[in-house]
Amino acid sequence: MEVPHKLLSFLKEEEKFLIATHISPEADAIGSSLALSMALEFLGKKTVLYDKDPVPKVCHFLPTYKKFTNIIPALSSSDFVLILLDCNTLERAGMESLTFKYSVVIDHHETEENFGDIKWVVPEAAATGMMIFYLIKELGITLTREMAINLYSAIAIDTGTFRYGNTNAEVLRIAAELVEAGAHPAYISGSLYETWSQERFTLLIRALNTLEVKGGVAIMFVTREMYKKTKTTSEDTENFPAFPRIMKDIKISAFFRELDDNYWKVSLRSKGDIDVAHVASFFKGGGHRNAAGYVVKSDFGSAKESLLELLLPTEE
Amino acid sequence: MEVPHKLLSFLKEEEKFLIATHISPEADAIGSSLALSMALEFLGKKTVLYDKDPVPKVCHFLPTYKKFTNIIPALSSSDFVLILLDCNTLERAGMESLTFKYSVVIDHHETEENFGDIKWVVPEAAATGMMIFYLIKELGITLTREMAINLYSAIAIDTGTFRYGNTNAEVLRIAAELVEAGAHPAYISGSLYETWSQERFTLLIRALNTLEVKGGVAIMFVTREMYKKTKTTSEDTENFPAFPRIMKDIKISAFFRELDDNYWKVSLRSKGDIDVAHVASFFKGGGHRNAAGYVVKSDFGSAKESLLELLLPTEE
Repeated sequence: MEVPHKLLSFLKEEEKFLIATHISPEADAIGSSLALSMALEFLGKKTVLYDKDPVPKVCHFLPTYKKFTNIIPALSSSDFVLILLDCNTLERAGMESLTFKYSVVIDHHETEENFGDIKWVVPEAAATGMMIFYLIKELGITLTREMAINLYSAIAIDTGTFRYGNTNAEVLRIAAELVEAGAHPAYISGSLYETWSQERFTLLIRALNTLEVKGGVAIMFVTREMYKKTKTTSEDTENFPAFPRIMKDIKISAFFRELDDNYWKVSLRSKGDIDVAHVASFFKGGGHRNAAGYVVKSDFGSAKESLLELLLPTEE
Repeated sequence: MEVPHKLLSFLKEEEKFLIATHISPEADAIGSSLALSMALEFLGKKTVLYDKDPVPKVCHFLPTYKKFTNIIPALSSSDFVLILLDCNTLERAGMESLTFKYSVVIDHHETEENFGDIKWVVPEAAATGMMIFYLIKELGITLTREMAINLYSAIAIDTGTFRYGNTNAEVLRIAAELVEAGAHPAYISGSLYETWSQERFTLLIRALNTLEVKGGVAIMFVTREMYKKTKTTSEDTENFPAFPRIMKDIKISAFFRELDDNYWKVSLRSKGDIDVAHVASFFKGGGHRNAAGYVVKSDFGSAKESLLELLLPTEE
């Protein structure tokens, strides 16, 4: 991966950076931003780390995560160069009303708009963390342990600890270098994946007990009553729709969360080429090919049937 | 990792090898054995691959897995050199009654007995697959795609796709080399982790419903009745003990499988520095620091209590 010369010389010349990332950030957004901030500060620059949303608890093991603020410095944002990380529009970062002296975009998502005075967008990169790794190298900075932990975490989350299709030899080799620089794979994986509360696990078991499988579609639900009984909230259902994927014959996993009386949020997950964004759009929802969702106002039975009728039209 | 010269020259000199691995084999046992067989056959040797148990379904994606037999060749085992892989006693392979011309042990488990004319045992190796990788390199053989898939799978399963404490920079770098030789991380991870039958998933849910948590210890069980009701076998419980690890406060996960009336197999999984091999040894079992097991002849209640008494001695 080649880092643009223009970007490198620009970063060396400028002095004050606002590093911002997308709303609902995860470990790639947070970890990449923190590592970049460390590198720029090593060069004597001033950096401010911004996210409109708070850093999620699952990222609280990332070194220096507390440097993130959700307040744009009062000194007027126009003093700062903006570096937008792991996203490529001001909207994704919830900053659409702001103006900056200059803006840089570093991202691995497909771009839809042409924002950014300097744009470095590499959709083939497994994680923004990969790009920051190369950037730090090109700046001639030795990776510290804290940078390594942040970058390893960024890459680990976006590759599902090296399980997804974006994992290649380069990803594994960089991971090895980050381990040598002080990242600890088991500690990081444990922090990312093994910090559920017992209550949350109990809720998962209850959700699994509602599992129904029909023609390659897995359906599970969680009611408000179940939250109450297990002392959990809807936040605790994060990642639940992924569990039925473990079954070979499951093509789509649909997870229903009760929001209110006769009001359900439906999360869809699919494997391979199956486009659930298309399915969600029928119900006025949206998302990506393999992860989408919508809300529906009806009782659970009707909500389920309307989905199954769409997914399995030849059955009956 | 250094491969003993004695082993290398011995493999070059001899002609007929019986490669055998432990009962209830998993992808490290099977994948390592297959890769070693391919390497020796490349050198013009004759190899027979033996396991007392059939190759489990989850390993049926491993290239040439069908070469495994559960019949010792009639030509008298004393014609063959035995290579015992991923275990270090004839008992673990269910071969205690046999004699061989000569025996080699290649393993990463702690040894308890002094079996083997040539012993190469490296407990620090994350997987036997790592050792076979070095062995193949030292034999001067170029890795084929089929060898790479077998070795990557071996290493992936024993490190939990690079999540366990045994994952280090060397593991990741070798994984990268195996990817370059033709292993496909997402295909292998999908084959290892997302090919469950619906029956197996149903059994998991039933097992999860038996979950009990006490002082950081998670306990689950599966009875023969549950196999019957879900049309599954003990093979389907592979990886079940790992699920409760997702909970932050769980230090040890103990999974009890009913083998017969008042006869249980117990699998232990731990996090971090907690040594369950040590725990298992109290019950005449064995294994690794973070994954060990034993069998116990008693009813479930007593089996559970005896374990909890050992793990939580200050409780009552």
